[in-house]
Amino acid sequence: MSRVYLDHNATMPLRAEARAAMTAAMDVAGNPSSVHAEGRAAKALIERARAQVAAAFGAEGADIVFTSGATEAAALALAGRDLLGAAVEHDAVASHVSGDLPVDRAGRARPAEPARSALQLANSETGVVQDLPAGLAVCDATQAFGKIPVAFNWIGCDMALISAHKIGGPKGVGALVMRRGTELAALLTGGGQEMGRRAGTENVIGIAGFGAAAEAAERELGSGAWARIADLRDGLEQRLRQAAPEVEIAGEGAARLPNTTCLISPGWKGETQVMQMDLKGFAVSAGSACSSGKVRESRVLRAMGYDEAAAGSAIRVSLGPGTTEEEITRFAEAWLAQREKHRARAA
Amino acid sequence: MSRVYLDHNATMPLRAEARAAMTAAMDVAGNPSSVHAEGRAAKALIERARAQVAAAFGAEGADIVFTSGATEAAALALAGRDLLGAAVEHDAVASHVSGDLPVDRAGRARPAEPARSALQLANSETGVVQDLPAGLAVCDATQAFGKIPVAFNWIGCDMALISAHKIGGPKGVGALVMRRGTELAALLTGGGQEMGRRAGTENVIGIAGFGAAAEAAERELGSGAWARIADLRDGLEQRLRQAAPEVEIAGEGAARLPNTTCLISPGWKGETQVMQMDLKGFAVSAGSACSSGKVRESRVLRAMGYDEAAAGSAIRVSLGPGTTEEEITRFAEAWLAQREKHRARAA
Repeated sequence: MSRVYLDHNATMPLRAEARAAMTAAMDVAGNPSSVHAEGRAAKALIERARAQVAAAFGAEGADIVFTSGATEAAALALAGRDLLGAAVEHDAVASHVSGDLPVDRAGRARPAEPARSALQLANSETGVVQDLPAGLAVCDATQAFGKIPVAFNWIGCDMALISAHKIGGPKGVGALVMRRGTELAALLTGGGQEMGRRAGTENVIGIAGFGAAAEAAERELGSGAWARIADLRDGLEQRLRQAAPEVEIAGEGAARLPNTTCLISPGWKGETQVMQMDLKGFAVSAGSACSSGKVRESRVLRAMGYDEAAAGSAIRVSLGPGTTEEEITRFAEAWLAQREKHRARAA
Repeated sequence: MSRVYLDHNATMPLRAEARAAMTAAMDVAGNPSSVHAEGRAAKALIERARAQVAAAFGAEGADIVFTSGATEAAALALAGRDLLGAAVEHDAVASHVSGDLPVDRAGRARPAEPARSALQLANSETGVVQDLPAGLAVCDATQAFGKIPVAFNWIGCDMALISAHKIGGPKGVGALVMRRGTELAALLTGGGQEMGRRAGTENVIGIAGFGAAAEAAERELGSGAWARIADLRDGLEQRLRQAAPEVEIAGEGAARLPNTTCLISPGWKGETQVMQMDLKGFAVSAGSACSSGKVRESRVLRAMGYDEAAAGSAIRVSLGPGTTEEEITRFAEAWLAQREKHRARAA
């Protein structure tokens, strides 16, 4: 039986539109900095993608600096600025901020000084969506972009981070989006690419894929596809809770991404669940994927007030546009069967 | 008539092998940091590419840190280390070093303190190959890798920079190669990817392309393809010099890459030549491409002792594995015809 991929928050399979744009870009031989026809053709691909990302992210008129991903965008936006961040930020943000902002049981933060703070729009592990304060310095929109309506020009922050592979583009491409004219010291220097803000020959093929994925993701969001995903997710949660009343859903009462559920099963290690479900043909995760293959107890859940045992017994199931009802049914059955085995062994 | 691409030092068209590897990688959906089967498959692509690059670059046993290109590799290797560099270094290196090392008329440097110095193996504009001293701190092998035999384990430097798109891989991928165990502070932090030296979800598709390109480039180098290219280049130089005795070839007496010729035509601006030849269907460059589309007088030629007029009247013609004799003949004829027009106007 074919495998079921339910780890879209870790990375989303490449969209057909992104694949087509990347395949076409493979034929464009030039260096975007070259002035000849081949160079201008490559440059045109980048500028087209920039316009596509701006339109999809509601960032018309803003500066979009393409990077090698949200991690580089975070470093570019945050390094050396000494901003504050919430304890639920992604590692790529957390490594540059003081994680002093407390969060409530749903993982929501209320920065007292937005202009000195970084805050995620949605959490990768729980899907919990923050109510962003006005005047925020940096917003990590990586998980939210493409899954809920979000427009840079409306959220009122100075800078935002986004990533291609979370919306069905390729891995290794992202962007820092900035109010036009924001001053910023480059992290990568040399050639004057990206208006002097990010040197280095551009990842033309990847950027073309990012643009196409952004356009497709935006169209899909407008089509109501994610409402269907939310229904599937809600149905899954309802079924699992009925059959397994001990299960807790992190951030349940709060606004959440439509595709994400973080299931806490006391006494059943998340790491074990991930491996058991993998063997049964299902890809889910425990904690954030972006940590060198190591599964750790969830820092996010700890910050939300869960104890070590609870934080260590969570899995994240994250659906995508291609997820079917049949896949969710199969997952629920397999997980519940595995739970029975676990309980029998534990008894 | 089809265009003739003679700007391989700016970027090389994507090799068929790289394209095939990238297309295959598009089907691998997982995040390399995920522990499930999809994640492990993505991780396997990266490790395969790492082995391919190590084999092609003679760096077995060394650490290979994949980056978003040689510019990021340069920043990772050089930022904050206060090394010395030659005045002919690429901007990506020059922006991090003190460019105090003088060069001779061929652009060759002799670092007095190799352990505190960065030095390129080959110059992008002239193709001049340096005689590297033992114990060099950082070697920029970006232009040399794939064009001449070079093995990291033999050149005796601590670190080396390489780039995929100079060898027929995709743009936006490169590597920092280091002696195993070299201490290095990460520039991008967050997830623990690349052994903690470079955080961020990996550019899996691009890295797969880099690996395949490296393997193909190494095989091609061994097949003698670049000796044929050198013959074409030498024939071109001979023909142009016979017909245009005023032309000077930068670095002519020195060891050079087999594919590169830097032609100085006093009184005829390089920028103008590039545009005129572009209109005639030929892609060549003036100076380095990696400077945001601006054509400037060559900093490299100035460092070699050429005056402003000479440095502003140079073009670089750089051949590639696909360059044919017929293309070179067409280029020589078109360039000489354009030269006649220029001389008629100037007279």
